[in-house]
Amino acid sequence: MTDIAMIEAARARLDGHVRRTPLLSSPFLDEIAGRRVLVKAECLQHTGSFKFRGAWSAVSALAPDVRANGVIAFSSGNHAQGVAYAAKLHGVPSVIIMPADAPRIKIANTRAYGAEVVLYDRINEDRDAIGERLAKERGLTLIKPFDEPLVIAGQGTTGLEIAEDATALGIAKADVLVPTGGGGLISGISLALAARAPGLTVHPAEPQGFDDMTRSLASGKIERNAAQGGSICDAILTPQPGNITFPILSRLSGAGIVVTDDEALHAISLAFNRLKIVVEPGGAAALAAALFHGETLGDTVIAVCSGGNVDPDIFKLALDRFPA
Amino acid sequence: MTDIAMIEAARARLDGHVRRTPLLSSPFLDEIAGRRVLVKAECLQHTGSFKFRGAWSAVSALAPDVRANGVIAFSSGNHAQGVAYAAKLHGVPSVIIMPADAPRIKIANTRAYGAEVVLYDRINEDRDAIGERLAKERGLTLIKPFDEPLVIAGQGTTGLEIAEDATALGIAKADVLVPTGGGGLISGISLALAARAPGLTVHPAEPQGFDDMTRSLASGKIERNAAQGGSICDAILTPQPGNITFPILSRLSGAGIVVTDDEALHAISLAFNRLKIVVEPGGAAALAAALFHGETLGDTVIAVCSGGNVDPDIFKLALDRFPA
Repeated sequence: MTDIAMIEAARARLDGHVRRTPLLSSPFLDEIAGRRVLVKAECLQHTGSFKFRGAWSAVSALAPDVRANGVIAFSSGNHAQGVAYAAKLHGVPSVIIMPADAPRIKIANTRAYGAEVVLYDRINEDRDAIGERLAKERGLTLIKPFDEPLVIAGQGTTGLEIAEDATALGIAKADVLVPTGGGGLISGISLALAARAPGLTVHPAEPQGFDDMTRSLASGKIERNAAQGGSICDAILTPQPGNITFPILSRLSGAGIVVTDDEALHAISLAFNRLKIVVEPGGAAALAAALFHGETLGDTVIAVCSGGNVDPDIFKLALDRFPA
Repeated sequence: MTDIAMIEAARARLDGHVRRTPLLSSPFLDEIAGRRVLVKAECLQHTGSFKFRGAWSAVSALAPDVRANGVIAFSSGNHAQGVAYAAKLHGVPSVIIMPADAPRIKIANTRAYGAEVVLYDRINEDRDAIGERLAKERGLTLIKPFDEPLVIAGQGTTGLEIAEDATALGIAKADVLVPTGGGGLISGISLALAARAPGLTVHPAEPQGFDDMTRSLASGKIERNAAQGGSICDAILTPQPGNITFPILSRLSGAGIVVTDDEALHAISLAFNRLKIVVEPGGAAALAAALFHGETLGDTVIAVCSGGNVDPDIFKLALDRFPA
């Protein structure tokens, strides 16, 4: 199980390799939210999302002879790029299993970060079987996207930075909103804050129709989403909370907040205009929650902008629909 | 005259008020440039540009009774917002003289940062006369945009951060490219580097047709631009080098680099895709120089992205013209 010692150990492994991302703010955002809003700009992380932290944590923790065989991951998005780049920087091979209909740019980027991309047909092929065969043949280690203690520990280093920056700003109490899919990032942050800044409470931010974590926290048991797609927040449309992440959040998380796709687009436009950062729809869910659903929150909100890998057409749509 | 002691003193005044901006990088940019490229993301500064540093430096250095009367500045852009916000945070009034045909959003932002905006007719009115009358009537102190030692000292704090971050990365030698209008930012950086990281050499980056500093450095005397407008790099279209900045750069700067508007747009798109930051055309001139005109440069280039206050239409144009 991930604990603060594991997160601190991950931080030591990440040091010098992972970017310490800044806390940004704007008086214009404070005014919209009616409270102080600080933004943890994790979109500025290597590979454009927090996923690089967990990937580095997991890859760097492998025994050198095991790592030398390489790693494998299933992902069409941010986890793919994080694992591919972490493996490349360790000088070991990576195989990423991606659906053949994934966006060309994501396939190209994953390859450019040094991975061997294996495409599969989502209708007619079993990706788990493909992965298992490759892992066995080549001795690859599977890096899971969230339900893996080492990955959670890596994501938790985000929480250590938030705790330190909040303390430096004299903030002892705040709500920390985190875009949530499977729950790896928010679990790690919650563990770090519980140990280092216990007055800071995490809340998941989720897209409408994909509020499995919010409902699971409310009911006390794992709930699934009915839909499988249909939101633009592609990075956080996981079917249900993880078996490892959910118990952590049951213990440490505040209530979830649900945002619409339009609110995520509005947050993207405001982040462009007021913070000068590029945020993807799923990565903007927490900022949208802070700006438009702050009723239940306290005076100070820290919103994690977890990724910036957005298609230019979606970005332009956000700017058009929500001019400054 | 600005020296390292003035820059260090400015830093002490700026501490806790000005953001320490990160150095970003991407293997994709290194590949395009054929060398290591580090980006000083000064677009993430308060008010969206480095101008806030110089404004804070100047406003904070005023005697309290003088400051209480307020400050005045001429600007339609980044200097306006920097001075307005620095004055607001000091709790003193600011008057910004802007052309009546300045973009609505810039006027609105300057007002929102707390300034009294005085509009003038560029054809029929004399802005200097208006400013002089107001300054005299109300006892306002003029904050010049670049030819002012306290402003140069504030911009120089950017150079202290570059020197520290480069040293931490083990970089003893590098070319530091800086978008250049009147030369306040690059002068300050050059003074800081000469004292703290003498192996780092500044170079101005300028738009085609507005390469007054590049030509002045080559000829050894102040040269003017023939054109007054026509580049999209609006933030750095100053008619000629400053009387204070030019002698500093004659002594400390390497040769200038000139970029086209299209290269600036391309750099904006690459900064969006690869760094997840929002850069304005003038602010992207140094990154464009690093990416597309590196022939004369060494193995490591540090490009300052000096501002991010870009019109959404220009930004969309960049993404359309230069897809990833």
